[in-house]
Amino acid sequence: MKRLGILTSGGDCPGVNAVVRGAVLAGVRTGQYDFVGYLDGWSGVLSNNSVPLTLESVRGLSRLGGTILGTSRTNPITSGGAPAVIASMERDHVDGLIAVGGEGSLAAARILGESGIKVIGVPKTIDNDLSATDYTFGFDTAVQTATEAIDRLRTTGESHHRCMIAEVMGRNAGWIALHAGMAAGAHAILIPERRVSLEQAAAWVLSARNRGRAPLVVVAEAYVPAGQDAPYFPRGLDTFGRPRLGGIGYLLEEQLQELTGIECRATVLGHIQRGGAPTAFDRVLATRLGMAAVRAASKGEWGVMVSSRGTDITTVALAAAIGELHTVPEDRYLEAEMLFG
Amino acid sequence: MKRLGILTSGGDCPGVNAVVRGAVLAGVRTGQYDFVGYLDGWSGVLSNNSVPLTLESVRGLSRLGGTILGTSRTNPITSGGAPAVIASMERDHVDGLIAVGGEGSLAAARILGESGIKVIGVPKTIDNDLSATDYTFGFDTAVQTATEAIDRLRTTGESHHRCMIAEVMGRNAGWIALHAGMAAGAHAILIPERRVSLEQAAAWVLSARNRGRAPLVVVAEAYVPAGQDAPYFPRGLDTFGRPRLGGIGYLLEEQLQELTGIECRATVLGHIQRGGAPTAFDRVLATRLGMAAVRAASKGEWGVMVSSRGTDITTVALAAAIGELHTVPEDRYLEAEMLFG
Amino acid sequence: MKRLGILTSGGDCPGVNAVVRGAVLAGVRTGQYDFVGYLDGWSGVLSNNSVPLTLESVRGLSRLGGTILGTSRTNPITSGGAPAVIASMERDHVDGLIAVGGEGSLAAARILGESGIKVIGVPKTIDNDLSATDYTFGFDTAVQTATEAIDRLRTTGESHHRCMIAEVMGRNAGWIALHAGMAAGAHAILIPERRVSLEQAAAWVLSARNRGRAPLVVVAEAYVPAGQDAPYFPRGLDTFGRPRLGGIGYLLEEQLQELTGIECRATVLGHIQRGGAPTAFDRVLATRLGMAAVRAASKGEWGVMVSSRGTDITTVALAAAIGELHTVPEDRYLEAEMLFG
Amino acid sequence: MKRLGILTSGGDCPGVNAVVRGAVLAGVRTGQYDFVGYLDGWSGVLSNNSVPLTLESVRGLSRLGGTILGTSRTNPITSGGAPAVIASMERDHVDGLIAVGGEGSLAAARILGESGIKVIGVPKTIDNDLSATDYTFGFDTAVQTATEAIDRLRTTGESHHRCMIAEVMGRNAGWIALHAGMAAGAHAILIPERRVSLEQAAAWVLSARNRGRAPLVVVAEAYVPAGQDAPYFPRGLDTFGRPRLGGIGYLLEEQLQELTGIECRATVLGHIQRGGAPTAFDRVLATRLGMAAVRAASKGEWGVMVSSRGTDITTVALAAAIGELHTVPEDRYLEAEMLFG
Repeated sequence: MKRLGILTSGGDCPGVNAVVRGAVLAGVRTGQYDFVGYLDGWSGVLSNNSVPLTLESVRGLSRLGGTILGTSRTNPITSGGAPAVIASMERDHVDGLIAVGGEGSLAAARILGESGIKVIGVPKTIDNDLSATDYTFGFDTAVQTATEAIDRLRTTGESHHRCMIAEVMGRNAGWIALHAGMAAGAHAILIPERRVSLEQAAAWVLSARNRGRAPLVVVAEAYVPAGQDAPYFPRGLDTFGRPRLGGIGYLLEEQLQELTGIECRATVLGHIQRGGAPTAFDRVLATRLGMAAVRAASKGEWGVMVSSRGTDITTVALAAAIGELHTVPEDRYLEAEMLFG
Repeated sequence: MKRLGILTSGGDCPGVNAVVRGAVLAGVRTGQYDFVGYLDGWSGVLSNNSVPLTLESVRGLSRLGGTILGTSRTNPITSGGAPAVIASMERDHVDGLIAVGGEGSLAAARILGESGIKVIGVPKTIDNDLSATDYTFGFDTAVQTATEAIDRLRTTGESHHRCMIAEVMGRNAGWIALHAGMAAGAHAILIPERRVSLEQAAAWVLSARNRGRAPLVVVAEAYVPAGQDAPYFPRGLDTFGRPRLGGIGYLLEEQLQELTGIECRATVLGHIQRGGAPTAFDRVLATRLGMAAVRAASKGEWGVMVSSRGTDITTVALAAAIGELHTVPEDRYLEAEMLFG
Repeated sequence: MKRLGILTSGGDCPGVNAVVRGAVLAGVRTGQYDFVGYLDGWSGVLSNNSVPLTLESVRGLSRLGGTILGTSRTNPITSGGAPAVIASMERDHVDGLIAVGGEGSLAAARILGESGIKVIGVPKTIDNDLSATDYTFGFDTAVQTATEAIDRLRTTGESHHRCMIAEVMGRNAGWIALHAGMAAGAHAILIPERRVSLEQAAAWVLSARNRGRAPLVVVAEAYVPAGQDAPYFPRGLDTFGRPRLGGIGYLLEEQLQELTGIECRATVLGHIQRGGAPTAFDRVLATRLGMAAVRAASKGEWGVMVSSRGTDITTVALAAAIGELHTVPEDRYLEAEMLFG
Repeated sequence: MKRLGILTSGGDCPGVNAVVRGAVLAGVRTGQYDFVGYLDGWSGVLSNNSVPLTLESVRGLSRLGGTILGTSRTNPITSGGAPAVIASMERDHVDGLIAVGGEGSLAAARILGESGIKVIGVPKTIDNDLSATDYTFGFDTAVQTATEAIDRLRTTGESHHRCMIAEVMGRNAGWIALHAGMAAGAHAILIPERRVSLEQAAAWVLSARNRGRAPLVVVAEAYVPAGQDAPYFPRGLDTFGRPRLGGIGYLLEEQLQELTGIECRATVLGHIQRGGAPTAFDRVLATRLGMAAVRAASKGEWGVMVSSRGTDITTVALAAAIGELHTVPEDRYLEAEMLFG
């Protein structure tokens, strides 16, 4: 029997555990593979820090948030590269790797794949900003969690005749803002792909107020108003050494209150969007992706990413998957804009 | 300005109100249409029983379950046909109809369309069994509600070392059972498309027990065990005069207990699956479908159904949409089966 | 250091695990006790089937439904009595017992206590029908789960102009029905303590309909209409050998439809009411009860039950606790009745 | 028939609408009263800005968050006082007032009552900091919402080996922090009543980490670390002209990271705690309080506040109700502290 290694890297995401469970069940039940799980992403691979993954160890995982394997931001390319990874895999008698990760991890997987390492990627980001897949798991849960929170904000806004502002995640793309905003009936959605001005945002707020509504604004953390240079980085660096986003909601609270004269209150939803039990949608998607990764391995389809297309799970070359980020296209924003104000 | 009439018919479904809101906002905000809403489905059309639908009247609808227009099982074809519908539309100065309905209603819409009536269908069923669309709105909510309920059943099953059986909806297709079962980590999923025997079901239950688990079975109401003739119809006729499904869970409780010797407890989830606030997924899908219906009308695309394809909303001919029911294909069941036992 | 044994018996209940965690943390952190957990209730005590309970083993338990110790219906009095329990405790070097259970288990604890066994009871029932405590943990979760389900039923009832009937648990008392019915805005609540006639129930249904509402009926499984002899027992015996309740909702569906002419649809909520993650209210209550049990032990207060009184946790003699069942008093029903129809 | 006026003032709170519904149903169904609802708190009283409240207008209110009457911070004592209120009541033919409000509003009600105005108070605050009542409605919903959010934070903390910090509301009292923290299994709870030092908080965080846990800290917005002078007021003034709380979580993020060397991430839960559908517990409590207010009126018991005591609803003199704030007593904190670290 051959052995596959699974690792989960980058920001965590509801559904990661369901991928692990789906892969292990698919490999063990068909008698094709046994599994080791590398702890804390690529750092576990490089240090041969792993645990066996059996039917017993994946029990009950489909509904568990987070990742039982832990995660880290370690980049295998800059930490030893392919030779180090190959050496580790040999020590563990691992035939191939299933790497559950975001853009960075999939890019690393691609480079390792070009060095002959057998690797299959599973796309993972709550931001839904990966190309070559309709949806990434975790996104649906993030949108649902944000929507439920925004539904709560709406009732308090209406009681106090306030404008409520909800800041959601989205480092490079406004997908969570777009979907949660549409679902919650927002009067304005502000995303990085479409740099509307603060004056435009204020106009939407006033229009909603003039129709007797308590205005509701949903803003992605990386939104940059027209005429400004960069996103709002109020708080140090993150684990990658990148400036940390989060807090533009509070800035908008002041600015929109100033521009409209309406009392504004912001809530920054933050990490609740990436934690907790996945939605049924994400559990099914993640389970199927994990199973598909093993199916690809058993066919010798290495160097690919498993992908969601319509109702199907398919595979695409890693190279195709990691080109451009998948951002909100103009027509989707114009569609939503018709609901604003 | 032209006028569109909207009606909602057949079994209700989370997201219907979001369709209505999406359509009205798209038509009014673009200055193209005003709207009337027909009450209680086609019966409202035939009796000119309608209300004006304004921006004000669709306020807050995206998250409201049920349908503010009411619904009925009236079939316009057998209740006056095209001439009656045309007469009603003329009285109300209605240019075209948006019919939000299931298989029956879309079939009626097709026939009316062939008589020259301007009609656009919006597919609506929690069962997800319509062709020519990836998903129907309401399905995601039904699956999520069922999954949360089944998660609850699991903990009590484990405490008591019982086999828990959850019966979910699905008149013709096992989609809800398949997805909720996968999401909840069921040890057996029983659906009408795949008539496994009771002995096979019992074997999965025993296999789970032998691994120390509290077995969990998810069954679609229309499942027929191998060797039996028809679904289980324990309770009279429904509004269509069809035998009512619902209750096979209780029958399985006895039969699986007999076959396995394990104490079994069934829960028939019933109508909670079609009520309540829609998930964010369904709100977005339904809103976009409602907007797309108006877009189709404004382009003169009549006789079509709006449809979800990948991440897009598109249109298909009504004729194509209502051919065969969309049931669970064999490969999807085989994929899930790998997780059983 | 002394040792306490913990067991959980009878029907499971959200919050049992939080009791276990609270007790273990309180005992270990104060350096007073270590713990063993007996598996499957009194049967584990009698067979010395136990596991050590450490800080590590209670990790994360406050939010986990069910009981990690398992449960059974074994009655220690009829299975060896005090001598057998004493012998087991000596073998395990257990100084005292914390018994988490319902009426039967607390009655057994009392008898054992009178034989000199050091035992402290923790009241546990979703039915809230124990005397000498304001609330039992698990009740709040059951009511919340039932209320959310009934909220869902309401929207589908309104769309179809149907009367929706929700059957909830309550073997001897109508507390779940009373609270979930009030919370959900039911037009009639039917409980065993107050045997209103079917004609009265039908009158409330018709009154709601006449005001333009979709009637909503909440019925406790043990409700017996005036003029009938016994509850409805459609399905065999339970683990205790008692006739199983559950199903009167379906009977009412027929009877109320007949009496009112309104289409009725019943849902029997069943076991979802006793499973799943506890509400925050129940987690806090259960944690505090577990801690209080250890506090009582450390003071040598044996033969008592821990109890919730206002905002306090206190102790009462087991003898006082298990006298009469705590059923819905007349004034609470009359209060609710003002909301009917 | 006599007429009662209802007003809702101060910060909104889940369950306010259920109070209004309970009062109107109790008054109308007994044929004793009809009702007007004053808009936006005391400002509606003073300007005779009211709407009639009928059975129809309170339909469906038990589960609706916010307040349909709107609210404001207007203080009747400083805005005309008793004479102005009396004049307004006479113009509207209102016999007595039901004032649903927090500390300030109840204090005003007391003063008005001493001037001979017939007024009954209903205590309302998510903070649970009012004396003379076991619980205030809205508190349970706030705790439940916070607990669900913190459950989500926990899984992402564990995946990333981070310390997660959740800031909850509580202007004067740490009740929400205490209950949500206990329910979620926090390793440290920081409240204004108990000014533990940052070093103590850091010690708890390190202790949890040393046991292999991802530390979880719950902090009330008004917590002041030992040795500091005042709460953290990062953002201007609120509607009362008081400095706005909210944001200490972000400050702790830096400080605890510095003190412990563990990566920390804060989430400020904010307004989601006061919005949205009330829990079943709060719906029942609020409905009963509304009904009890009318019962008190019909008995001529003016100048009282309705109050929750154990399982009963009773009345207390307004004077008794508004003395001291109900803060977390030492024994409750010491009880919780046993679970820390």
